[in-house]
Amino acid sequence: MPYIAVEAHLPGITGLLEYRKDTAQPIRELTQILLRGESTLTEGERELIATVTSNGNECKFCTAAHTAAADIFLGETETSACIKTDIESAPLSEKMKALLVIADKIRESGRSVKPEHVERARAAGATDLEIHDTVLIAALFCLYNRYVDGLATALPDSPAYFDMLAERLKNHGYMRLPQGYDHLKKNQQ
Amino acid sequence: MPYIAVEAHLPGITGLLEYRKDTAQPIRELTQILLRGESTLTEGERELIATVTSNGNECKFCTAAHTAAADIFLGETETSACIKTDIESAPLSEKMKALLVIADKIRESGRSVKPEHVERARAAGATDLEIHDTVLIAALFCLYNRYVDGLATALPDSPAYFDMLAERLKNHGYMRLPQGYDHLKKNQQ
Repeated sequence: MPYIAVEAHLPGITGLLEYRKDTAQPIRELTQILLRGESTLTEGERELIATVTSNGNECKFCTAAHTAAADIFLGETETSACIKTDIESAPLSEKMKALLVIADKIRESGRSVKPEHVERARAAGATDLEIHDTVLIAALFCLYNRYVDGLATALPDSPAYFDMLAERLKNHGYMRLPQGYDHLKKNQQ
Repeated sequence: MPYIAVEAHLPGITGLLEYRKDTAQPIRELTQILLRGESTLTEGERELIATVTSNGNECKFCTAAHTAAADIFLGETETSACIKTDIESAPLSEKMKALLVIADKIRESGRSVKPEHVERARAAGATDLEIHDTVLIAALFCLYNRYVDGLATALPDSPAYFDMLAERLKNHGYMRLPQGYDHLKKNQQ
Protein backbone atom coordinates (compact mmCIF):
# COMPACT_ATOMS: atom_id res chain seq x y z
CA MET A 1 0.00 0.00 0.00
CA PRO A 2 1.70 3.24 -1.12
CA TYR A 3 2.20 5.91 1.56
CA ILE A 4 0.40 8.55 -0.54
CA ALA A 5 -2.72 8.42 -2.70
CA VAL A 6 -1.41 7.51 -6.15
CA GLU A 7 -3.69 5.96 -8.79
CA ALA A 8 -4.09 2.31 -7.84
CA HIS A 9 -3.60 0.99 -11.38
CA LEU A 10 -0.21 2.72 -11.82
CA PRO A 11 2.61 0.81 -10.06
CA GLY A 12 6.16 1.92 -9.25
CA ILE A 13 7.35 5.18 -10.77
CA THR A 14 4.36 5.43 -13.13
CA GLY A 15 1.93 6.52 -10.41
CA LEU A 16 4.41 9.03 -8.98
CA LEU A 17 4.99 10.67 -12.37
CA GLU A 18 1.22 11.17 -12.67
CA TYR A 19 0.84 12.28 -9.04
CA ARG A 20 2.87 15.44 -9.56
CA LYS A 21 3.21 16.19 -13.26
CA ASP A 22 5.15 19.42 -12.88
CA THR A 23 8.04 17.72 -11.10
CA ALA A 24 7.70 14.68 -13.39
CA GLN A 25 8.41 16.73 -16.50
CA PRO A 26 12.07 17.65 -15.73
CA ILE A 27 12.71 14.14 -14.33
CA ARG A 28 11.46 12.68 -17.61
CA GLU A 29 13.52 15.17 -19.66
CA LEU A 30 16.73 14.44 -17.77
CA THR A 31 16.20 10.70 -18.25
CA GLN A 32 15.41 11.09 -21.93
CA ILE A 33 18.60 13.12 -22.56
CA LEU A 34 20.83 10.76 -20.58
CA LEU A 35 19.40 7.40 -21.70
CA ARG A 36 18.13 8.15 -25.21
CA GLY A 37 20.01 11.28 -26.31
CA GLU A 38 23.10 11.34 -28.51
CA SER A 39 25.94 9.42 -26.85
CA THR A 40 28.98 7.29 -27.58
CA LEU A 41 27.43 4.75 -25.18
CA THR A 42 24.67 2.65 -26.72
CA GLU A 43 21.15 2.72 -25.33
CA GLY A 44 21.69 -0.84 -24.09
CA GLU A 45 24.88 0.17 -22.26
CA ARG A 46 23.10 3.09 -20.61
CA GLU A 47 20.22 0.84 -19.54
CA LEU A 48 22.84 -1.45 -17.95
CA ILE A 49 24.07 1.51 -15.84
CA ALA A 50 20.46 2.06 -14.69
CA THR A 51 20.14 -1.67 -13.99
CA VAL A 52 23.33 -2.08 -11.95
CA THR A 53 22.41 0.96 -9.85
CA SER A 54 18.81 -0.09 -9.22
CA ASN A 55 19.85 -3.66 -8.46
CA GLY A 56 22.46 -2.50 -5.94
CA ASN A 57 19.84 -0.28 -4.30
CA GLU A 58 17.50 -3.30 -4.19
CA CYS A 59 14.73 -1.40 -5.95
CA LYS A 60 12.68 -4.22 -7.46
CA PHE A 61 10.51 -2.09 -9.74
CA CYS A 62 13.40 -0.16 -11.33
CA THR A 63 15.62 -3.23 -11.57
CA ALA A 64 12.94 -5.23 -13.40
CA ALA A 65 12.06 -2.32 -15.70
CA HIS A 66 15.63 -1.50 -16.75
CA THR A 67 16.72 -5.13 -16.98
CA ALA A 68 13.88 -5.65 -19.45
CA ALA A 69 14.82 -2.47 -21.35
CA ALA A 70 18.52 -3.46 -21.49
CA ASP A 71 17.59 -6.95 -22.69
CA ILE A 72 15.54 -5.57 -25.57
CA PHE A 73 18.31 -3.23 -26.71
CA LEU A 74 21.04 -5.88 -26.34
CA GLY A 75 18.96 -8.67 -27.87
CA GLU A 76 19.97 -11.09 -25.09
CA THR A 77 19.48 -11.55 -21.35
CA GLU A 78 22.89 -12.85 -20.26
CA THR A 79 24.64 -9.51 -19.80
CA SER A 80 22.03 -7.92 -17.55
CA ALA A 81 21.91 -11.12 -15.47
CA CYS A 82 25.71 -11.19 -15.12
CA ILE A 83 26.17 -7.59 -13.98
CA LYS A 84 23.79 -8.17 -11.07
CA THR A 85 26.08 -10.76 -9.52
CA ASP A 86 29.55 -9.99 -10.91
CA ILE A 87 30.33 -7.12 -13.25
CA GLU A 88 33.75 -8.56 -14.10
CA SER A 89 32.27 -11.80 -15.47
CA ALA A 90 29.89 -10.03 -17.88
CA PRO A 91 30.46 -10.27 -21.65
CA LEU A 92 31.32 -6.57 -21.86
CA SER A 93 34.27 -4.43 -22.91
CA GLU A 94 36.82 -3.43 -20.29
CA LYS A 95 35.53 0.15 -20.67
CA MET A 96 31.95 -0.83 -19.87
CA LYS A 97 33.04 -2.93 -16.91
CA ALA A 98 35.00 0.04 -15.54
CA LEU A 99 32.01 2.36 -16.04
CA LEU A 100 29.63 -0.08 -14.32
CA VAL A 101 32.02 -0.29 -11.37
CA ILE A 102 31.93 3.53 -11.15
CA ALA A 103 28.10 3.39 -11.23
CA ASP A 104 28.12 0.85 -8.41
CA LYS A 105 30.44 3.07 -6.34
CA ILE A 106 28.21 6.10 -6.96
CA ARG A 107 25.32 4.05 -5.64
CA GLU A 108 27.16 3.54 -2.35
CA SER A 109 28.28 7.16 -2.07
CA GLY A 110 29.84 9.86 -4.22
CA ARG A 111 32.88 9.57 -1.98
CA SER A 112 33.30 5.88 -2.86
CA VAL A 113 34.57 6.77 -6.36
CA LYS A 114 38.37 6.76 -6.09
CA PRO A 115 40.98 7.94 -8.61
CA GLU A 116 41.81 4.33 -9.50
CA HIS A 117 38.20 3.68 -10.60
CA VAL A 118 38.34 6.64 -12.97
CA GLU A 119 41.87 5.78 -14.14
CA ARG A 120 40.75 2.26 -15.04
CA ALA A 121 37.89 3.63 -17.16
CA ARG A 122 40.17 6.17 -18.83
CA ALA A 123 42.87 3.56 -19.56
CA ALA A 124 40.15 1.51 -21.28
CA GLY A 125 39.27 4.46 -23.49
CA ALA A 126 36.45 6.17 -21.59
CA THR A 127 36.08 9.89 -22.31
CA ASP A 128 35.33 12.65 -19.79
CA LEU A 129 31.77 12.79 -21.10
CA GLU A 130 31.26 9.03 -20.74
CA ILE A 131 32.54 9.18 -17.16
CA HIS A 132 30.33 12.22 -16.46
CA ASP A 133 27.26 10.57 -17.93
CA THR A 134 27.87 7.32 -16.05
CA VAL A 135 28.05 9.24 -12.77
CA LEU A 136 24.92 11.27 -13.55
CA ILE A 137 22.88 8.26 -14.74
CA ALA A 138 23.80 6.34 -11.57
CA ALA A 139 22.99 9.41 -9.43
CA LEU A 140 19.65 9.81 -11.24
CA PHE A 141 18.74 6.21 -10.49
CA CYS A 142 19.65 6.77 -6.84
CA LEU A 143 16.91 9.42 -7.00
CA TYR A 144 14.44 7.12 -8.80
CA ASN A 145 15.07 4.13 -6.50
CA ARG A 146 14.47 6.27 -3.39
CA TYR A 147 11.39 7.92 -4.88
CA VAL A 148 9.84 4.55 -5.80
CA ASP A 149 10.67 2.66 -2.59
CA GLY A 150 10.50 5.63 -0.18
CA LEU A 151 6.80 6.01 -0.95
CA ALA A 152 6.20 2.24 -0.91
CA THR A 153 4.77 2.09 -4.44
CA ALA A 154 3.22 -1.11 -5.75
CA LEU A 155 5.15 -3.80 -7.62
CA PRO A 156 3.26 -5.58 -10.45
CA ASP A 157 2.92 -9.33 -9.97
CA SER A 158 3.37 -10.18 -13.61
CA PRO A 159 6.75 -10.22 -15.40
CA ALA A 160 4.75 -9.46 -18.56
CA TYR A 161 4.15 -5.96 -17.19
CA PHE A 162 7.87 -5.21 -17.42
CA ASP A 163 8.11 -6.59 -20.94
CA MET A 164 5.36 -4.18 -21.98
CA LEU A 165 6.99 -1.31 -20.10
CA ALA A 166 10.35 -2.06 -21.72
CA GLU A 167 8.77 -2.06 -25.19
CA ARG A 168 7.40 1.37 -24.48
CA LEU A 169 10.74 2.62 -23.12
CA LYS A 170 12.44 1.34 -26.27
CA ASN A 171 9.90 2.67 -28.77
CA HIS A 172 8.75 5.88 -27.07
CA GLY A 173 11.45 6.79 -24.55
CA TYR A 174 10.89 8.47 -21.21
CA MET A 175 8.63 11.39 -22.09
CA ARG A 176 4.93 11.39 -21.25
CA LEU A 177 2.89 9.85 -24.04
CA PRO A 178 0.84 12.50 -25.87
CA GLN A 179 -2.88 12.34 -26.53
CA GLY A 180 -3.66 9.57 -29.01
CA TYR A 181 -1.40 7.05 -27.31
CA ASP A 182 -4.02 6.00 -24.80
CA HIS A 183 -3.93 2.40 -26.05
CA LEU A 184 -0.28 2.24 -24.99
CA LYS A 185 -1.00 3.81 -21.62
CA LYS A 186 -3.71 1.24 -21.09
CA ASN A 187 -1.40 -1.61 -22.02
CA GLN A 188 0.83 -0.61 -19.18
CA GLN A 189 -1.80 -0.69 -16.52
CA MET B 1 41.42 17.83 -8.62
CA PRO B 2 38.11 16.97 -10.32
CA TYR B 3 37.99 13.71 -12.32
CA ILE B 4 36.78 15.51 -15.47
CA ALA B 5 37.75 18.84 -17.05
CA VAL B 6 35.36 21.33 -15.48
CA GLU B 7 36.17 25.06 -15.40
CA ALA B 8 38.71 25.55 -12.62
CA HIS B 9 37.03 28.66 -11.19
CA LEU B 10 33.65 26.89 -10.71
CA PRO B 11 33.63 24.66 -7.59
CA GLY B 12 31.15 21.98 -6.54
CA ILE B 13 27.96 21.70 -8.55
CA THR B 14 28.53 25.01 -10.37
CA GLY B 15 31.19 23.59 -12.70
CA LEU B 16 29.11 20.47 -13.44
CA LEU B 17 26.04 22.52 -14.38
CA GLU B 18 28.18 24.42 -16.90
CA TYR B 19 29.95 21.25 -18.13
CA ARG B 20 26.78 19.77 -19.60
CA LYS B 21 24.11 22.45 -19.92
CA ASP B 22 21.47 20.25 -21.55
CA THR B 23 21.33 17.92 -18.55
CA ALA B 24 21.71 20.89 -16.17
CA GLN B 25 18.51 22.53 -17.39
CA PRO B 26 16.03 19.87 -16.11
CA ILE B 27 18.05 19.46 -12.90
CA ARG B 28 17.75 23.21 -12.29
CA GLU B 29 14.03 23.19 -13.16
CA LEU B 30 13.25 20.31 -10.80
CA THR B 31 15.11 22.04 -7.99
CA GLN B 32 13.41 25.37 -8.66
CA ILE B 33 9.94 23.77 -8.55
CA LEU B 34 10.65 21.76 -5.39
CA LEU B 35 12.58 24.36 -3.38
CA ARG B 36 11.11 27.65 -4.62
CA GLY B 37 7.75 26.75 -6.13
CA GLU B 38 4.39 27.09 -4.40
CA SER B 39 4.31 24.92 -1.27
CA THR B 40 2.85 24.72 2.22
CA LEU B 41 6.45 24.21 3.39
CA THR B 42 8.46 27.42 3.64
CA GLU B 43 11.60 27.92 1.56
CA GLY B 44 13.62 27.69 4.79
CA GLU B 45 12.00 24.37 5.70
CA ARG B 46 12.72 22.97 2.25
CA GLU B 47 16.35 24.12 2.47
CA LEU B 48 16.55 22.24 5.79
CA ILE B 49 15.49 19.04 3.98
CA ALA B 50 18.32 19.64 1.48
CA THR B 51 20.71 20.32 4.37
CA VAL B 52 19.88 17.23 6.44
CA THR B 53 20.22 15.00 3.36
CA SER B 54 23.53 16.52 2.20
CA ASN B 55 24.94 16.45 5.72
CA GLY B 56 24.04 12.78 6.16
CA ASN B 57 25.69 12.02 2.81
CA GLU B 58 28.77 13.94 4.01
CA CYS B 59 28.75 16.15 0.91
CA LYS B 60 30.64 19.21 2.15
CA PHE B 61 29.81 21.50 -0.77
CA CYS B 62 26.06 20.87 -0.74
CA THR B 63 25.88 20.93 3.08
CA ALA B 64 27.62 24.29 3.27
CA ALA B 65 25.54 25.76 0.43
CA HIS B 66 22.14 24.69 1.76
CA THR B 67 23.00 25.43 5.39
CA ALA B 68 23.80 28.98 4.29
CA ALA B 69 20.59 29.17 2.24
CA ALA B 70 18.46 27.82 5.12
CA ASP B 71 20.08 30.29 7.53
CA ILE B 72 19.20 33.25 5.31
CA PHE B 73 15.58 32.17 4.94
CA LEU B 74 15.19 31.35 8.64
CA GLY B 75 17.06 34.44 9.86
CA GLU B 76 19.08 32.38 12.37
CA THR B 77 21.72 29.63 12.37
CA GLU B 78 20.64 27.51 15.34
CA THR B 79 18.12 25.30 13.54
CA SER B 80 20.41 24.20 10.69
CA ALA B 81 23.17 23.49 13.23
CA CYS B 82 20.81 21.41 15.41
CA ILE B 83 19.43 19.19 12.65
CA LYS B 84 22.95 18.08 11.72
CA THR B 85 23.49 16.48 15.11
CA ASP B 86 19.99 15.74 16.46
CA ILE B 87 16.79 16.46 14.56
CA GLU B 88 14.66 15.96 17.70
CA SER B 89 16.44 18.77 19.58
CA ALA B 90 15.88 21.36 16.84
CA PRO B 91 13.49 24.30 17.45
CA LEU B 92 11.05 22.97 14.88
CA SER B 93 7.43 21.81 14.79
CA GLU B 94 6.68 18.12 15.32
CA LYS B 95 5.64 18.00 11.63
CA MET B 96 9.00 19.31 10.42
CA LYS B 97 10.92 16.97 12.70
CA ALA B 98 8.94 14.03 11.31
CA LEU B 99 9.58 15.18 7.72
CA LEU B 100 13.31 15.60 8.37
CA VAL B 101 13.45 12.08 9.81
CA ILE B 102 11.81 10.83 6.58
CA ALA B 103 14.44 12.74 4.56
CA ASP B 104 17.21 11.16 6.61
CA LYS B 105 15.74 7.68 6.02
CA ILE B 106 15.47 8.34 2.27
CA ARG B 107 19.14 9.24 2.32
CA GLU B 108 19.98 5.79 3.68
CA SER B 109 17.65 3.95 1.29
CA GLY B 110 14.11 4.21 0.00
CA ARG B 111 13.44 0.98 1.88
CA SER B 112 14.39 2.62 5.19
CA VAL B 113 11.17 4.65 5.25
CA LYS B 114 8.75 2.63 7.38
CA PRO B 115 4.99 3.11 7.92
CA GLU B 116 5.65 4.53 11.40
CA HIS B 117 7.79 7.35 9.96
CA VAL B 118 4.96 8.36 7.63
CA GLU B 119 2.33 7.91 10.34
CA ARG B 120 4.25 10.23 12.66
CA ALA B 121 4.35 12.93 9.98
CA ARG B 122 0.67 12.48 9.18
CA ALA B 123 -0.32 12.60 12.88
CA ALA B 124 1.53 15.90 13.11
CA GLY B 125 -0.51 17.29 10.22
CA ALA B 126 1.66 16.55 7.17
CA THR B 127 -0.28 16.22 3.90
CA ASP B 128 0.35 13.67 1.15
CA LEU B 129 1.96 16.40 -0.93
CA GLU B 130 4.29 17.46 1.89
CA ILE B 131 5.35 13.83 2.38
CA HIS B 132 5.80 13.40 -1.38
CA ASP B 133 7.86 16.57 -1.70
CA THR B 134 10.05 15.69 1.29
CA VAL B 135 10.84 12.32 -0.28
CA LEU B 136 11.56 13.84 -3.69
CA ILE B 137 13.71 16.69 -2.30
CA ALA B 138 15.78 14.21 -0.28
CA ALA B 139 16.06 11.91 -3.33
CA LEU B 140 17.13 14.86 -5.49
CA PHE B 141 19.88 15.76 -3.04
CA CYS B 142 21.03 12.13 -3.09
CA LEU B 143 21.53 12.77 -6.81
CA TYR B 144 23.31 16.11 -6.24
CA ASN B 145 25.58 14.79 -3.47
CA ARG B 146 26.72 11.86 -5.65
CA TYR B 147 27.19 14.09 -8.71
CA VAL B 148 29.33 16.59 -6.75
CA ASP B 149 31.46 14.09 -4.80
CA GLY B 150 31.51 11.30 -7.41
CA LEU B 151 33.41 13.58 -9.78
CA ALA B 152 35.63 14.96 -6.99
CA THR B 153 34.69 18.58 -7.57
CA ALA B 154 36.55 21.35 -5.75
CA LEU B 155 35.47 22.77 -2.40
CA PRO B 156 36.01 26.54 -1.90
CA ASP B 157 38.29 27.43 1.01
CA SER B 158 36.34 30.47 2.05
CA PRO B 159 33.07 30.36 4.01
CA ALA B 160 32.32 33.71 2.35
CA TYR B 161 31.82 31.83 -0.93
CA PHE B 162 28.81 30.03 0.52
CA ASP B 163 27.32 33.24 1.91
CA MET B 164 27.46 34.71 -1.61
CA LEU B 165 26.05 31.53 -3.14
CA ALA B 166 23.21 31.48 -0.59
CA GLU B 167 22.35 35.12 -1.39
CA ARG B 168 22.05 34.15 -5.03
CA LEU B 169 19.94 31.08 -4.22
CA LYS B 170 17.64 33.27 -2.14
CA ASN B 171 17.34 36.14 -4.58
CA HIS B 172 17.55 34.34 -7.93
CA GLY B 173 16.68 30.70 -7.25
CA TYR B 174 18.12 27.70 -9.03
CA MET B 175 17.77 28.63 -12.69
CA ARG B 176 20.74 29.71 -14.79
CA LEU B 177 21.30 33.46 -14.57
CA PRO B 178 20.38 35.14 -17.86
CA GLN B 179 22.62 37.54 -19.79
CA GLY B 180 23.07 40.77 -17.87
CA TYR B 181 23.70 39.02 -14.56
CA ASP B 182 27.39 38.53 -15.23
CA HIS B 183 28.31 40.56 -12.16
CA LEU B 184 26.55 37.99 -10.01
CA LYS B 185 28.16 35.08 -11.80
CA LYS B 186 31.53 36.71 -11.19
CA ASN B 187 30.77 37.14 -7.49
CA GLN B 188 30.34 33.43 -7.20
CA GLN B 189 33.63 32.46 -8.68
